[in-house]
Amino acid sequence: MKRLLILGSTGSIGTQALDVVKRAPEQFEIVGLSAGSNHLPLVQQAIERGVKRIALTDPDAAARAGENWTGGEVLSGPEGLVQLVAESGADLVLNSIVGSAGLGPTIVALTERMDVALANKESLVVGGELVTALAEATGARLIPIDSEHTAIHHLLTGEPPGVVDKLVITASGGPFRGRKDLTGITVEDALNHPTWRMGGKITIDSATLMNKGLEVMEAHHLFGTPYDKIDVVVHPQSIIHAMVQLCDGSTKAHMGYPDMRVAIGYALHHPDRADLPIKPLDLVELGQLTFEAPDLETFPCLRLAREAAVAGGTAPCALNAANEVAVHAFLNGRLPFTGIPQVIAGVLDELGSRRVHDFEALYVTDAEAREIAAELIESVHA
Amino acid sequence: MKRLLILGSTGSIGTQALDVVKRAPEQFEIVGLSAGSNHLPLVQQAIERGVKRIALTDPDAAARAGENWTGGEVLSGPEGLVQLVAESGADLVLNSIVGSAGLGPTIVALTERMDVALANKESLVVGGELVTALAEATGARLIPIDSEHTAIHHLLTGEPPGVVDKLVITASGGPFRGRKDLTGITVEDALNHPTWRMGGKITIDSATLMNKGLEVMEAHHLFGTPYDKIDVVVHPQSIIHAMVQLCDGSTKAHMGYPDMRVAIGYALHHPDRADLPIKPLDLVELGQLTFEAPDLETFPCLRLAREAAVAGGTAPCALNAANEVAVHAFLNGRLPFTGIPQVIAGVLDELGSRRVHDFEALYVTDAEAREIAAELIESVHA
Repeated sequence: MKRLLILGSTGSIGTQALDVVKRAPEQFEIVGLSAGSNHLPLVQQAIERGVKRIALTDPDAAARAGENWTGGEVLSGPEGLVQLVAESGADLVLNSIVGSAGLGPTIVALTERMDVALANKESLVVGGELVTALAEATGARLIPIDSEHTAIHHLLTGEPPGVVDKLVITASGGPFRGRKDLTGITVEDALNHPTWRMGGKITIDSATLMNKGLEVMEAHHLFGTPYDKIDVVVHPQSIIHAMVQLCDGSTKAHMGYPDMRVAIGYALHHPDRADLPIKPLDLVELGQLTFEAPDLETFPCLRLAREAAVAGGTAPCALNAANEVAVHAFLNGRLPFTGIPQVIAGVLDELGSRRVHDFEALYVTDAEAREIAAELIESVHA
Repeated sequence: MKRLLILGSTGSIGTQALDVVKRAPEQFEIVGLSAGSNHLPLVQQAIERGVKRIALTDPDAAARAGENWTGGEVLSGPEGLVQLVAESGADLVLNSIVGSAGLGPTIVALTERMDVALANKESLVVGGELVTALAEATGARLIPIDSEHTAIHHLLTGEPPGVVDKLVITASGGPFRGRKDLTGITVEDALNHPTWRMGGKITIDSATLMNKGLEVMEAHHLFGTPYDKIDVVVHPQSIIHAMVQLCDGSTKAHMGYPDMRVAIGYALHHPDRADLPIKPLDLVELGQLTFEAPDLETFPCLRLAREAAVAGGTAPCALNAANEVAVHAFLNGRLPFTGIPQVIAGVLDELGSRRVHDFEALYVTDAEAREIAAELIESVHA
């Protein structure tokens, strides 16, 4: 039986992970759950699954949970989250915390030699080199939860070393694929993703193509692949999630209807396969799959992300922080859609790239980038 | 260094195999070559590759080779071919003999515990159960050379047992895809395959879809998959060669431009990967991949093959022999294209299915089926 800790358990990935676990209850023991401020759903999950320890990073929410629930211990704040991870004794930590707040728990889990099923892409985007070095040093495994990286992880299983010519990540292209002018886009427009139902932040990242930029960085860190060997192809049906091109002329692809339970099941059951009630792929019913090149003129976020990735050091951290602030401002009506890449470019121009020696440097860059981004948004809004 | 014996070395697969070997000369020693009657090309190959022992199944051709070449030994006739295999000391026998004549050498190689890279599909179609039982008994491996089965073999690597829900083999649909009336088709029409350049027999089998029926049988024997879990999907671009659907909702596909060197390189280098100068797949350039269901009304050969497969016993052997005779008659202008399934259906009706206890039963059925097929063709032609 695997001892499993789920961070971000009330979110989209977290609730689906609980569903996947429910299908094989004899294989998992849930040793802890965490959320940001959603205390009522978290307490309900703890009661349903018999979990005795939960954490809420929002102290007010933690206090309210403690008032409502006497069935176990409630840990509070970012320190409480760290404590939950460090003392969990988990075999596998599923980290589905949204944003750069997910980096700390990943570090703690890897330091404690716990395998990490990673849905928090910022752990790799921001802390890539340090996180992978830490995993290597402690022997803990990083198993991605993301349709593209799960696909690549799966496709590389059984391949001898040194045979990969290229990784190809597909992009749906988002709701604005084919448009050449992105002025006047509303929040409602941008949240209307054509193939995937996801949280707000990641849906906007899909609409700007920033999501693919972050995924290119993740793939680089997870699989040690140079950036010039990671391609992005727009594939509107989102049926092929990723491909691996090998030195013998063959290409392997990982396919399926868009359903995150496949990626979650892969990470939770690895190296075995989950048994999930997912509709088998029917290509005859689909009729066709189409492919096109990404439009980097209209969607500059993918280009900015690639530039920050190649610059390395603190640049990806700054890009990510600026993007988080800009997307938040867009969702709150304080920045136009086209302002998102402008803010990011402004932050990158101002901060440049410095070398990263420790995680502290990343926290400093993250704070600086957020401050500059906020100032740029203020000046646009004024 | 792998000791390699190539049977059928002057054919399409054989010559490409020699090209693949030439790219990694330090990894292979060619211990023998064989052909049917192409004595001059065979002798030339032997001289170029420094091979000291060759076999020609046509005794006249063998005699002429012996007159022209004094650089080594020429073995003659089917017995000479068996001797070449049995005494080769090969680690790997590439069997690319066309038709049911390839069954004998496969049996000899497996009996001698030599791995077999199998491009001769009749070894499995005709002798499937006995051949796989023999391989299991001696521990020799069967590695398919065929874009579809190589694809499946590759895709199953690294998968834990019991996870396969379905195998999907793709078909180009051949030159007559979409037609509802196949009367009046000429040999020239039928040899004009849209995506693959192959020998005459297999090109006609592609045009009738018999090829896919034979491949379904091969897949059943190679991978132990029940017939109701092997699907055929028409995919005119021939980019996806096969797919594997797993119990966790994921589907893996093996893709690439149609190029048999990929399958040959896979079998020769297994479990490593060949390094081949093959154009990497560019899906953006292709733009789209399309899929449709096979038309079993217009192309009854696929249905006949499935029926013979499920009947088992001697039925696949009879089907295969009848098909060889009917295709030969079509290529020689003695049978219309639509007569091919008629002859096969007639032979299957007359012979039914008997249990197979030994290879002898197969040779008897093969001869009977050929005789009945010839009579049916004669009656049509008369």
